[in-house]
Amino acid sequence: MEKIQVDIKDVLQTVSKADIEALRPEADEALAKLTDGTGLGADFLGWVKLPTETSEALLNDLIAAANNLREHCDAVVCIGIGGSYLGAKAVIAALGNQLGTTPAGSPEILFAGQNIGEDYLYDLMEHLRGRRFGIIVISKSGTTTEPAIAFRLLKSMLEQQVGREEAAKLIVAITDAHKGALRSLATTEGYKTFVIEDNVGGRFSVLTPVGLLPIAVAGYDIKALVAGAREMEQATLTGADNSAMTYAMTRNALYRAGKKIEILVNYNPNLHFFNEWWKQLYGESEGKDHKGIFPAAVDNSTDLHSMGQWIQDGERIIFESVISVRDQRHEVRIPTDSDNLDGLNYLAGKRVDEVNKMAELGTRIAHVDGGVPNMRIVMPRLSEQFLGQLIYFFEAACGISGYLLGVNPFNQPGVEAYKSNMFALLEKPGYEEATKAIKSRL
Amino acid sequence: MEKIQVDIKDVLQTVSKADIEALRPEADEALAKLTDGTGLGADFLGWVKLPTETSEALLNDLIAAANNLREHCDAVVCIGIGGSYLGAKAVIAALGNQLGTTPAGSPEILFAGQNIGEDYLYDLMEHLRGRRFGIIVISKSGTTTEPAIAFRLLKSMLEQQVGREEAAKLIVAITDAHKGALRSLATTEGYKTFVIEDNVGGRFSVLTPVGLLPIAVAGYDIKALVAGAREMEQATLTGADNSAMTYAMTRNALYRAGKKIEILVNYNPNLHFFNEWWKQLYGESEGKDHKGIFPAAVDNSTDLHSMGQWIQDGERIIFESVISVRDQRHEVRIPTDSDNLDGLNYLAGKRVDEVNKMAELGTRIAHVDGGVPNMRIVMPRLSEQFLGQLIYFFEAACGISGYLLGVNPFNQPGVEAYKSNMFALLEKPGYEEATKAIKSRL
Repeated sequence: MEKIQVDIKDVLQTVSKADIEALRPEADEALAKLTDGTGLGADFLGWVKLPTETSEALLNDLIAAANNLREHCDAVVCIGIGGSYLGAKAVIAALGNQLGTTPAGSPEILFAGQNIGEDYLYDLMEHLRGRRFGIIVISKSGTTTEPAIAFRLLKSMLEQQVGREEAAKLIVAITDAHKGALRSLATTEGYKTFVIEDNVGGRFSVLTPVGLLPIAVAGYDIKALVAGAREMEQATLTGADNSAMTYAMTRNALYRAGKKIEILVNYNPNLHFFNEWWKQLYGESEGKDHKGIFPAAVDNSTDLHSMGQWIQDGERIIFESVISVRDQRHEVRIPTDSDNLDGLNYLAGKRVDEVNKMAELGTRIAHVDGGVPNMRIVMPRLSEQFLGQLIYFFEAACGISGYLLGVNPFNQPGVEAYKSNMFALLEKPGYEEATKAIKSRL
Repeated sequence: MEKIQVDIKDVLQTVSKADIEALRPEADEALAKLTDGTGLGADFLGWVKLPTETSEALLNDLIAAANNLREHCDAVVCIGIGGSYLGAKAVIAALGNQLGTTPAGSPEILFAGQNIGEDYLYDLMEHLRGRRFGIIVISKSGTTTEPAIAFRLLKSMLEQQVGREEAAKLIVAITDAHKGALRSLATTEGYKTFVIEDNVGGRFSVLTPVGLLPIAVAGYDIKALVAGAREMEQATLTGADNSAMTYAMTRNALYRAGKKIEILVNYNPNLHFFNEWWKQLYGESEGKDHKGIFPAAVDNSTDLHSMGQWIQDGERIIFESVISVRDQRHEVRIPTDSDNLDGLNYLAGKRVDEVNKMAELGTRIAHVDGGVPNMRIVMPRLSEQFLGQLIYFFEAACGISGYLLGVNPFNQPGVEAYKSNMFALLEKPGYEEATKAIKSRL
């Protein structure tokens, strides 16, 4: 079975094998805590065995719900924020094409409730006006401000277009099993629903219905995605594959050696939103108690002409983790040109990806020479299977890494601070005291 | 005249007014160096007086060339990388809508040559097959690998579709005035051309034909864009407006106080690529000699549910600069709901942007309370005029800031390192020795 691989040889100029291995006892302990639930945040370990525990029946139910939307809709809007947005977006973008086209026969996949942009919502509604659209609304409580606003607007628009009864058949709710505003509404209106389990946090939810339903609606094979994750789960938990452990130990060794920023690098524009998903996974898991590696990302070779100078020669507080995709989906060869004014004939007949691979290798050598440790995460291709492996790899490594850092990787107390202030400023009922306090500061 | 404003009161918990003012003599000197050309990199100061020196005749010529493409093309591909990509992309995205729609009557604007993604090029060519498309190719030399590959492929495709003679009328080259591969080709083929002046570096080129032509093709008012930049140029150079100076001094004071990362923040999805443009401008100008602030960016409130936790509570080595857009283009009000299950009726009748503004204010208070200094850059709206002001503001501040840091803000020696390695690995003629050397290391 092919699997993604991690190569750490190009960090060894900065941290030694001994530095990294010194973390193994802690890392072994961290992995044990993840499997036996004895570490911090143990209420949120539902993701650890999720791939193997996901039933065929659930996957079939998701595919049936997806097919219903695919059949009746030209566009489907996924409403959610944070983990209820990034996982689906990342996988759909990775499997799709960058011109925004979905596979033949699939509806256009749109996102809402991931921001509060008034113009964004206006443009989105104009884009949907008069079209056959459906909604997947994702919220544990149903009251998170961003998605709740978007859902009010789009539900109302859909009901005006097709009537309340018909709209109810085009709305799927992914929410708490029993309680909350969205569960109540779904029961009243008779929406098809899927459950957000209590023990899986948002940023670990891409392999639950939260991510799987939008991915299935877009036309991708969620069984293969889960199967890939299952391969990595089994390999990681049995110790047959140490790549998650290696990645977690290495990045912590680099952090302890003063490398404050990790840049996740891709050479494939399709991975842009995968990088964004990774930033949430690691930033929200580790950025607490005034510590944690700052997660950043670049899309190369685009950003070699943007952040490249800084990476090559700025402060030496960074390291890079490069996702390297071995095989591309399509073949494009560089044509020959009789005039050769651009001097490119030395590349004629080569595949574009051969040049990209040499850009990647040339960059790695240049950056390592410049004092930037590089890890390399190699995957065979951007398929459902290997994306499933990559997702589980990063999730497992994140849990281990958070424990190595000494934080609870499964909470996000800092996300509440802006919300409380916002509610106070908006004079939300129940926030009267907070409103008075914050207004006196302005 | 309305102008963008900078507010620094929320950094004063970290650096005092005195700390900032201590930099004024150096900053005054830096500004003088920019205007009299006595500082480092003085060969690249063409951008300083560019807005006032841009002639009406050039703008009219650009508009005429744009109108020709608009008339004959359903899609126009802009080929360029780095500064030959990001400026146009940033302005077009800021003025456009996030569903990818261009103004009525405008062609679809696409980009190529900003990466070496084989699948990206394949998907792009499939997207263009059989359609009436034009090309704007932007390269000083005409031999930069990424755009040269894309241009070979797309030129060949266009010539196959419409014939060589017709293709020549649909290609515009923006290149060196006299020399280089693209200039030679343009002369031979009779392409319409515009000049990249020697004294304006790529990342400062958005207000030259490099940025202006694509922006005009997309249907936006380049005269208003240049007029806005001119307002800021005159105000900055006469000392009537100190905002660029203030921003430069403040961020350097914060850097000297140990804040290693600047996060440019927006609350408007349209500004995502403006943030990317800013990252190139500052990263490439300052990231050298093992120093410089690391430029990062977030799109809020989206990223409050991703990077928000880290910003609130991670290592205290960051500060934020928030671009706050006062007025939105469209009005969307939150509807009332008789059931109010989502509890949002306290917001019913309010504009979506009122909620967004309270998210912004609530976040600023939370982050400042959490130890993250905040600057605020306020602009009236996302119009050509104010984007022109903002561009010049950031460019001027970048020049001043680079001199305060003690680097040459106008070179980018580090960008060459990966290129040399790549050429050696690809066995480019002339690199025989380097090829031997690099292969012996593998």
